[in-house]
Amino acid sequence: MQIFLPTGQAIEALPDESLLTSLRRSKVYLVSSCGGKGTCGKCRVRVTQGSVNVLSSNKVSERLKAEGYSLACQTVPLGDVHIEIPQESRLTIGDKIAVGRAEDLAELVRTLNVTVSPLAKRLTLSVPPPTLDDSISDLERIKRTVTSCCLEAGNMHVRYHVLKEMSGALRRQNWKVTVTLGTGEVPELLSVRAGTHDGEGYGVAVDIGTTTVVVYLVDMATGRLVDVGSTYNSQMQFGDDVINRIVHATEHGRLSQLMKLVHSDVNDLLEPLLDRHDITPDDVDSMVIAGNTTMTQLFYGLDPQYIREEPYIPSANRYPEIHAGQLGLRVNSGAPVYTVPCVASYVGGDIVAGVLASGMGRRESFSLFLDIGTNGEIALGNSEMLMTAACSAGPCFEGSGIRHGMRATEGAIEAVEFAPETFEPVLKVVGNVKPIGICGSGMIDAIGDMFLKGIIDQRGKLQAVSPRIRDGEEGKEIVLYDSDDQTIVLTEPDIENVVRAKAAIHAGCAVLLREMGFTMDMVDKVFIAGGFGNYLNVEKAILLGMLPDVDRGKFVFLGNTSVAGSYLCLLSADMRREAEEIAARMTYLELSVSNSFMDEYMSALFLPHTDISRYPSVQKRMPGNG
Amino acid sequence: MQIFLPTGQAIEALPDESLLTSLRRSKVYLVSSCGGKGTCGKCRVRVTQGSVNVLSSNKVSERLKAEGYSLACQTVPLGDVHIEIPQESRLTIGDKIAVGRAEDLAELVRTLNVTVSPLAKRLTLSVPPPTLDDSISDLERIKRTVTSCCLEAGNMHVRYHVLKEMSGALRRQNWKVTVTLGTGEVPELLSVRAGTHDGEGYGVAVDIGTTTVVVYLVDMATGRLVDVGSTYNSQMQFGDDVINRIVHATEHGRLSQLMKLVHSDVNDLLEPLLDRHDITPDDVDSMVIAGNTTMTQLFYGLDPQYIREEPYIPSANRYPEIHAGQLGLRVNSGAPVYTVPCVASYVGGDIVAGVLASGMGRRESFSLFLDIGTNGEIALGNSEMLMTAACSAGPCFEGSGIRHGMRATEGAIEAVEFAPETFEPVLKVVGNVKPIGICGSGMIDAIGDMFLKGIIDQRGKLQAVSPRIRDGEEGKEIVLYDSDDQTIVLTEPDIENVVRAKAAIHAGCAVLLREMGFTMDMVDKVFIAGGFGNYLNVEKAILLGMLPDVDRGKFVFLGNTSVAGSYLCLLSADMRREAEEIAARMTYLELSVSNSFMDEYMSALFLPHTDISRYPSVQKRMPGNG
Repeated sequence: MQIFLPTGQAIEALPDESLLTSLRRSKVYLVSSCGGKGTCGKCRVRVTQGSVNVLSSNKVSERLKAEGYSLACQTVPLGDVHIEIPQESRLTIGDKIAVGRAEDLAELVRTLNVTVSPLAKRLTLSVPPPTLDDSISDLERIKRTVTSCCLEAGNMHVRYHVLKEMSGALRRQNWKVTVTLGTGEVPELLSVRAGTHDGEGYGVAVDIGTTTVVVYLVDMATGRLVDVGSTYNSQMQFGDDVINRIVHATEHGRLSQLMKLVHSDVNDLLEPLLDRHDITPDDVDSMVIAGNTTMTQLFYGLDPQYIREEPYIPSANRYPEIHAGQLGLRVNSGAPVYTVPCVASYVGGDIVAGVLASGMGRRESFSLFLDIGTNGEIALGNSEMLMTAACSAGPCFEGSGIRHGMRATEGAIEAVEFAPETFEPVLKVVGNVKPIGICGSGMIDAIGDMFLKGIIDQRGKLQAVSPRIRDGEEGKEIVLYDSDDQTIVLTEPDIENVVRAKAAIHAGCAVLLREMGFTMDMVDKVFIAGGFGNYLNVEKAILLGMLPDVDRGKFVFLGNTSVAGSYLCLLSADMRREAEEIAARMTYLELSVSNSFMDEYMSALFLPHTDISRYPSVQKRMPGNG
Repeated sequence: MQIFLPTGQAIEALPDESLLTSLRRSKVYLVSSCGGKGTCGKCRVRVTQGSVNVLSSNKVSERLKAEGYSLACQTVPLGDVHIEIPQESRLTIGDKIAVGRAEDLAELVRTLNVTVSPLAKRLTLSVPPPTLDDSISDLERIKRTVTSCCLEAGNMHVRYHVLKEMSGALRRQNWKVTVTLGTGEVPELLSVRAGTHDGEGYGVAVDIGTTTVVVYLVDMATGRLVDVGSTYNSQMQFGDDVINRIVHATEHGRLSQLMKLVHSDVNDLLEPLLDRHDITPDDVDSMVIAGNTTMTQLFYGLDPQYIREEPYIPSANRYPEIHAGQLGLRVNSGAPVYTVPCVASYVGGDIVAGVLASGMGRRESFSLFLDIGTNGEIALGNSEMLMTAACSAGPCFEGSGIRHGMRATEGAIEAVEFAPETFEPVLKVVGNVKPIGICGSGMIDAIGDMFLKGIIDQRGKLQAVSPRIRDGEEGKEIVLYDSDDQTIVLTEPDIENVVRAKAAIHAGCAVLLREMGFTMDMVDKVFIAGGFGNYLNVEKAILLGMLPDVDRGKFVFLGNTSVAGSYLCLLSADMRREAEEIAARMTYLELSVSNSFMDEYMSALFLPHTDISRYPSVQKRMPGNG
């Protein structure tokens, strides 16, 4: 059985397998927030030819059903089929996913005063060949040569795989070899390769996000960013969030599958990058990864079960150095893989990397750090003290659980302004094309403006101020866009989701501040990290009560700080030490069991907040105070 | 196709496969000194039923051919066959292979004043379970518990595989675990197992001989020898000596096959030993191996090619610590495997282990150490200086290259005395059974006595003093035993082989002495190691000029010192340091390119020696001086 796409591509389908599963196997990814349970309604496809068995039509309107639409996860072909995949159902990496620019990184390196000192150092050696009078072993010969040219290597550690490659490598190019040494306390022989390979080699910094995987290819001589690659985390097929991944790994016993998927993602990203710059995998001598605690454990194949069960314990926060060859990563098999340390089950290496990249751990004055991605993590502090928490904001800002929610890719409504009297919306769409959904910043913009204009009340309920507000399947909804083939609405449940998310973020910040005996005006900087952070309308986010109502000059947008921090750790031993020191001194607050968090959360379910005095600038602009 | 044995055992035969190969696959091992090339004539079998294709009948007499005998390596079945394997063709471990006794080892430990300090230390921990207020990671929790009970573990190294097993192990038996720590400079977490496993666990000392593999199972609490196992090295099927193994590994590209064979041998030996004493493989926390340089490299899968090519360079002499799990050895996967260091391509860890066990490296007075096994290695020195050499004696004392040569197993003639006038031989046979061949000590005994009685001259040529001396296929031979179904002879080529071997040993000793500016009378002890050493008639060996003509009280027989030294290193860090110090200060002399060795060798091709004054006691007993 085959599935034919309009492009002519033919995909193999196995009996009793859903279209979603068959497509995945061929790396055609659809949006599937619920992980293929038929509940999110996002993996819609249109069957144009052939017969199928549709298991459930939940979330597909009668009109679309009549046109041949069904959910890919609920549709099983009974023979060859031809299908169309609408743009909004496709999972694609948007241009807008921030992946960093070489100039920004160079600036970061200057600002933080980073000196390059990689995990591995490369030496090219001309080893004196053995004679009958000088017949020490190959290993002793290498050690002697290293000692005579560079550093005392008598007690050098040697990896087993090096023993195997060493003798051949020495003789292959006439006793000229390139060795890689680990730069820890005791020198370690990581690899021996035939011939001279000049330069300092390359390194790879990786951000293992729940949603995306980003790699930086770095020239270790200069620290220069050579190239960047990003892709969706293939684990996505088992759900959008860490909880679904943990369930898959533990309840379904597929830990090793999840590990291999993310290793493949890294390998698949690296292959074209290395090709493009004519670099062999063996020339990549070091790697750093940063990810949340679950992603980090899955990367190493460590059972994440106990992350999810009270009292929420990760296997490790600080990881030993592991070698690329132990993981099947296609770089120099001796390349050390350093892991940006984690703090707790829900504050991982991505946040430590972020705090590192923000420089807040060095500042005397206090900063607030917000990473609003698939989850929402917060850090607060300065060079003396650091506190952190995860506030379970959920992935709604990435489109999950929102009727027409989507990521900030082409076709996403990213800004909405309602006309003052007619309440007609003016839309800004990513790529300036026909809209196909709404992304996180679009929602914040729309909801903030609706609140300002009185279209919704303080509880987020839609007011009957315009014919655009109508009764939908899930209660009231507002039509943002309507054409022959596409309607985009925001429903009251959508708005509730966003309000709950912003309440969680507000509550998290409030509890951290209180725990430290602080008020918001003592905070000097608000760092906003995460792909999302780049396109956030601060004014609207404050209107919503999602960001604190402070001097707008205090907000600093940092983009993907996880990969930036990973890059810094790749570059420098000082940065690795600083990351460890940050992780060690960060106090983690478990909000899920905190009563004061629940109180703050409940109070924050209003727009902007039950206690309007916390939002003085909003108070001034509110209807009735205008 | 099947091969049926008289026992009823049926063995699968593949098309075009020799009987030898089919039997090997089913672990029925035949003597095959030439590795199946059809040249040694030892793998004789008798086909009693079925048709076969015999490729070559080299070394099979017409009479035996007529009875259905052929070489298993040259015989290919054309259908089902029934065969008989004569006793002399079977490779079996003789009872007489010295494997050590617990009392002897205990005595050795006392003599050398060894304190037990293993490679790995076992701790049973009751880890305080995590709570919301104490939510550090599993790894940090283990480190904290180790630090609080035993030793500072903050910087403890952690093996990757431990990360994977740790979280499950902690929870499986209510936070009671047994951890194993490496006892190097920096503590290392080697394994974490659920539950409390009291005691210090077990260790395994291994001697990887070219011919045999011996394992000692040791209780690490007391250092007591629990049990012993030995088997033939399965690599034997690719030839008797290291050169054939190297050829197989390099020319045939079967390095990994050879490695796996010896790992299987160790696993197969351990399995019944552990079963018998109700010990789980996980309870074996450490291992030491000793072997000659080639055996050591093959054990780790390191290409031995350069050992064989001038200037004879091993990959390594001192090995890094490798873990059992990296090798597929069925003990605790975190168990460190320590390698007794080697000195040079032809003086390996077996000799370092031997020198260690002999204690000669500690003595002020000078000792000579001889290990006459498959090869012949010599060491000379004291606590100040040590010198060593390999003298390529060849495996003739193990029966290789000798018409009716065999190992010292049941049926081997181990002593021969000729009656003064009739020259009728009186034989002593291992197991007091019908003789089927002659072993090394039997040959030395026979040749020594023949020389003393004038049956051979100084050049080893047979004299026509008895009808037992006759013309055979390869020149003159003397009939030692003759019955209806078995004739055992020593041929002039056999005698030449033995003379060449003893000449090599003598020459090696002479050159070492000269290099050190010594004479034999300055040597205080002559340590004789090797399975062979146990059954050597010293008087006859001196008559032959194989052993030096010194005070008989100076000879000390040590048995298998390779496994004894391996055992000492398993027991104690001091012993491991001493082994390393011995290996480091041993000066290796390459005899194969030494002119003075060739001169000495040529002079020693006489019995006992061209310069009879070197053998005063023999001179007195010689014909004409009697």
